[in-house]
Amino acid sequence: MRILMINPNTSPGITDKVVIAARGVASPGTEIAGATGRFGARYITSRAGAAIAAHAALDAYAEHQDNADAVVLACFGDPGLGALKELAAQPVVGMAEASCLLAAALGRRFAIVTGGARWQPMLEEFVASIGLADKLARVETVAPSGGDIARDPDAALALLADAAKRCATDHGADAVILGGAGLAGLAQRIAEHVPVPLVDCVAAAVKAAEALAALDPGKARAGSYSSPGATETVGLASALGRILAHE
Amino acid sequence: MRILMINPNTSPGITDKVVIAARGVASPGTEIAGATGRFGARYITSRAGAAIAAHAALDAYAEHQDNADAVVLACFGDPGLGALKELAAQPVVGMAEASCLLAAALGRRFAIVTGGARWQPMLEEFVASIGLADKLARVETVAPSGGDIARDPDAALALLADAAKRCATDHGADAVILGGAGLAGLAQRIAEHVPVPLVDCVAAAVKAAEALAALDPGKARAGSYSSPGATETVGLASALGRILAHE
Amino acid sequence: MRILMINPNTSPGITDKVVIAARGVASPGTEIAGATGRFGARYITSRAGAAIAAHAALDAYAEHQDNADAVVLACFGDPGLGALKELAAQPVVGMAEASCLLAAALGRRFAIVTGGARWQPMLEEFVASIGLADKLARVETVAPSGGDIARDPDAALALLADAAKRCATDHGADAVILGGAGLAGLAQRIAEHVPVPLVDCVAAAVKAAEALAALDPGKARAGSYSSPGATETVGLASALGRILAHE
Amino acid sequence: MRILMINPNTSPGITDKVVIAARGVASPGTEIAGATGRFGARYITSRAGAAIAAHAALDAYAEHQDNADAVVLACFGDPGLGALKELAAQPVVGMAEASCLLAAALGRRFAIVTGGARWQPMLEEFVASIGLADKLARVETVAPSGGDIARDPDAALALLADAAKRCATDHGADAVILGGAGLAGLAQRIAEHVPVPLVDCVAAAVKAAEALAALDPGKARAGSYSSPGATETVGLASALGRILAHE
Amino acid sequence: MRILMINPNTSPGITDKVVIAARGVASPGTEIAGATGRFGARYITSRAGAAIAAHAALDAYAEHQDNADAVVLACFGDPGLGALKELAAQPVVGMAEASCLLAAALGRRFAIVTGGARWQPMLEEFVASIGLADKLARVETVAPSGGDIARDPDAALALLADAAKRCATDHGADAVILGGAGLAGLAQRIAEHVPVPLVDCVAAAVKAAEALAALDPGKARAGSYSSPGATETVGLASALGRILAHE
Amino acid sequence: MRILMINPNTSPGITDKVVIAARGVASPGTEIAGATGRFGARYITSRAGAAIAAHAALDAYAEHQDNADAVVLACFGDPGLGALKELAAQPVVGMAEASCLLAAALGRRFAIVTGGARWQPMLEEFVASIGLADKLARVETVAPSGGDIARDPDAALALLADAAKRCATDHGADAVILGGAGLAGLAQRIAEHVPVPLVDCVAAAVKAAEALAALDPGKARAGSYSSPGATETVGLASALGRILAHE
Repeated sequence: MRILMINPNTSPGITDKVVIAARGVASPGTEIAGATGRFGARYITSRAGAAIAAHAALDAYAEHQDNADAVVLACFGDPGLGALKELAAQPVVGMAEASCLLAAALGRRFAIVTGGARWQPMLEEFVASIGLADKLARVETVAPSGGDIARDPDAALALLADAAKRCATDHGADAVILGGAGLAGLAQRIAEHVPVPLVDCVAAAVKAAEALAALDPGKARAGSYSSPGATETVGLASALGRILAHE
Repeated sequence: MRILMINPNTSPGITDKVVIAARGVASPGTEIAGATGRFGARYITSRAGAAIAAHAALDAYAEHQDNADAVVLACFGDPGLGALKELAAQPVVGMAEASCLLAAALGRRFAIVTGGARWQPMLEEFVASIGLADKLARVETVAPSGGDIARDPDAALALLADAAKRCATDHGADAVILGGAGLAGLAQRIAEHVPVPLVDCVAAAVKAAEALAALDPGKARAGSYSSPGATETVGLASALGRILAHE
Repeated sequence: MRILMINPNTSPGITDKVVIAARGVASPGTEIAGATGRFGARYITSRAGAAIAAHAALDAYAEHQDNADAVVLACFGDPGLGALKELAAQPVVGMAEASCLLAAALGRRFAIVTGGARWQPMLEEFVASIGLADKLARVETVAPSGGDIARDPDAALALLADAAKRCATDHGADAVILGGAGLAGLAQRIAEHVPVPLVDCVAAAVKAAEALAALDPGKARAGSYSSPGATETVGLASALGRILAHE
Repeated sequence: MRILMINPNTSPGITDKVVIAARGVASPGTEIAGATGRFGARYITSRAGAAIAAHAALDAYAEHQDNADAVVLACFGDPGLGALKELAAQPVVGMAEASCLLAAALGRRFAIVTGGARWQPMLEEFVASIGLADKLARVETVAPSGGDIARDPDAALALLADAAKRCATDHGADAVILGGAGLAGLAQRIAEHVPVPLVDCVAAAVKAAEALAALDPGKARAGSYSSPGATETVGLASALGRILAHE
Repeated sequence: MRILMINPNTSPGITDKVVIAARGVASPGTEIAGATGRFGARYITSRAGAAIAAHAALDAYAEHQDNADAVVLACFGDPGLGALKELAAQPVVGMAEASCLLAAALGRRFAIVTGGARWQPMLEEFVASIGLADKLARVETVAPSGGDIARDPDAALALLADAAKRCATDHGADAVILGGAGLAGLAQRIAEHVPVPLVDCVAAAVKAAEALAALDPGKARAGSYSSPGATETVGLASALGRILAHE
Repeated sequence: MRILMINPNTSPGITDKVVIAARGVASPGTEIAGATGRFGARYITSRAGAAIAAHAALDAYAEHQDNADAVVLACFGDPGLGALKELAAQPVVGMAEASCLLAAALGRRFAIVTGGARWQPMLEEFVASIGLADKLARVETVAPSGGDIARDPDAALALLADAAKRCATDHGADAVILGGAGLAGLAQRIAEHVPVPLVDCVAAAVKAAEALAALDPGKARAGSYSSPGATETVGLASALGRILAHE
């Protein structure tokens, strides 16, 4: 089984981190490939960055999708998730969506801890957009951005542990997601300080992708997640243009 | 990895079906064990039957939980799910909950097809209780009960296919869950007639249990899903009484 | 008119307190009978305890329902309420449900004060399950459990008064329910300290039962609250088994 | 105990019907008095009529409230309910609100059947305004207005029975309210044709008023249902002006 | 274009302030006329005051509606808004509704700052009644009433600025409405202290009225906002009675 | 006043139609400029097309925003609306958002009629994303796409009139929006067949832009709609890259 991890942040170093983390949790026999967005923000920290990243994710999918059995949209916040599900022939997993759905099974309400203050409203909107607003106890952000944390995780550990603990004790979260590629692998390092289950977003996404690829529920042939009709476009990279044109 | 499938219907034949179906989708190295409720309805078709089954599920857990790495509550409708999550040391997966969370990733709204008319409001209530009411397009029931379908699946195939198709075409479902132990394995037999992805509830539960056991997010040490304090009881089977008493 | 108060806590002393409190508010001509759960927790403080109590409530109903004109499920939190409504030939009133519906008429939002920290999320879930989440301002718990308060009410008075007052002043509650059999009769003792109306849960339940018995809206003959079809069971007490089997 | 029934329709004949129906269901010792609005629509069939009726209800309260132990706002739709609760020293019961809260205890969702097509959206808005939108299965209207039905109930019986039955069979209602003073007493005449419990709105209101008067939860001394501060007004009838001015 | 501003507070001085503020923001060619309620509270501070004002607004409309191209209900809280929309031949704009709809376009959630503590729950109810509860971050009130602020705006400036700032920094509001005729024109005086956009309620209402009058979407000929059928009334001022009677 | 209409469909002919329609409803003194997306679908009919269009809208804004007093995102469905609001110094109006907010003032619930079946779920999601789900009665689509209707409006008139009428009569809509640049100007041609007010989406957007530009509530200096911090990007057109980099 081959899983394509698409990182629409345009930082290959982040992609590498995600791929390594994914390989660490993948089942035997699961192959992990990575792809990096070709245009847009180095690290997404705003709605504008996310909007461009949605396009970049589709572009990267078109370029790299061959032989993939499942696709992971590997930017927590999942820019372009619905569009990618619609376009892709394979099952598509969003890193934030998969984390939320897994955390939803661990209790009544979950929280998200991530880096960068603007992600708080953006993630509240995201969780609402996937229909899980009632299960969200809290989004808590720490000051360093996800990019900062990826560069120097040790410096953020205490902040992340405090934020996660607050989610449980002050906001009633039954589980806490550590959101963002840069936070992959940190859950086990702060678990002793947090009294509720912790969810690693890369691990959650890989397991969801493996499950969907194994179960193979099939691509929709009707409804709004079926493949859109052939579409004339201008100005796109050729691979994406060809997929949209059904060429 | 060892998964305990608890069937709180008091029909060992149903348990056998569930275990066989689970083994068919389990990963290499996953061992599947089954346990059957010791009291209550042969096949649950009402709120009263479900209420008794919640107790029977806890009782079966107490009796059979040794050596399990994850527990599946293998009655679609998940009677006693919250109580079992609270009580169990291992991760607990509800067959209906796992199916809904998997289907939630396949589009905006999902539907459930099952047997027995009374399950329609009961499942609407269940889906609301896990916070997914906004994602439920429809619960559609066919006349034969889940028990009937388990005994003679062929007779129900056309009814199930029609119901699942209606969910997609008339109610806007992007995915359809076939709910109930008796419907395990039927998804692939009706898939060509249904234009949206189909979810097999046993398979969804097994994959969720495998994922949780692998990720091991940890048992809550605080909040309402942590282990309850030692509780004095009367009249319970000794294994359940001992767990509640922390003996 | 005869009202059966079913206490699914397995503490006969609590049942006695409830019956005495009920007689104190019942109309002339209303007879109050009590029944105590035969198995389960002495005092329910967890989802596991509540799940077992739902079965115990059905069992007690089957044993004691003869000649009752209405039934009160006399454990605040109402374990098994839907199942009992479905099964019973008489009108069924939940002590928590009746309190919430009465408090709902006293303003825009109500609060609940009770004993035992785990009841906070359990009661939030309960209120949501009866469709009143939007009307719930707050569930506030005090440290002593309902059982503790029943044994020594005086020790808890100041705590309860403070909690009820906070519901009004900090959380915008227009009315406050004192929830739990052990708190019956305490409303009048703290009323001067609480600036909004207080609801005594036993009194609310008795008045609701008297109203339903007098109005006699009839047992559903269709829908999911009609009597379920005859059900084969194993391992139940004979009275409950016979009701489920329509014998 | 004395209950004041305020009919803000300006038709004394309707008031008489309501009072007679109320006396038929009141407990021994309950005295029923009636008051009729002094200005506004003969029979309310629009938002404009209801808005004027809210003022008329306050005016009638001010004129007639002496010696009342509880007040019933006896126009289904409850114009001015919040204002009357705020202003009155006694417990206030809305005929529609009380019916909805009673019906809410009879199952998961209830329906309302009444006369006059414009009441459908108005009652949907009303039910939402009291926080019960999730419990409303359907508002079904018949062509004759409530006033027409009050004048000739026999002519409407078959229409009402059909509408109520449809609520149960097509819209999943577990209980059906017959809404409107003109429909008082008709529930028992159509009950055999309707497979779910029926709620008579006058009876529901009287029982709720008796319960609140007996339980006496107290008038709010804080919050938005406490008595408003002394208010200078112009142009009102003297009794209402004096109450608002705290004279 | 002629806009009629109806102030259902019975204080002509407030009407004058509103009219002057409206003229200050109206487009060239827009004529502003004012009308004052003839009965009810000098300044509305309670549900009772608002209920009477709804009637007064209809009464003032009937008296003054000739030649108006659009109508503004110029009391923040919009008493009688639905009734006036139903009754009026012209487009009707509520000052609070227009402010909320404009603020809704400025971000995800908005807040309201106004004078008088009782308006907090009343405005929460109002916002919910127009379907915008999910977009409301907060209603913050300052101690002086709207009437007080109208008389001495300077005294309230610091309080209003602090309250508006708190809405942004503590409650996540993306925009803040200054609600109440007495606060017209103050937005620009506190803008430098508030880090999010401010909405002046009179200006929002005038622009909405100009837009609706220009676009002229037409009066409903069906549904519950079409003109109600001819209605027999008693005791109303002759202009209102004639409109309701279709005379 | 200068309004920039950004059409992220890559069809200059559609932009021309929008600009002409906008000029037809603009106030004297309002100048209308148009800009067309440089990459993506000729006419957007899928989530993938919309995701690319969000980027194209930001790109067009960066290229053409000089001297604009307000910006209209002139593709019904508003791809990139939040990102554009965040990025732009001027007020930003979405054509769908403005239409929904205007229609929200015309009654309790509104409907949308547009071309192309896939827009139904996409617009339901959009309306939910702006917090107006409870006010949406229905999205009705006709078979010809918006592009088809733009090319030959006459052929679609009867279909559009029927769809709009159904929204009112079958789905309870109090107002109906004709959504899509291609439908600009058609409202008046079908108004006599539709018994509720009709909203022209271009006109609604222009009036909202004029109002916001006139009221000038100010750009957020805090919160998630303030300008994002300087962001390093790769691969973007130079104008957009410079804005994101704060150069």
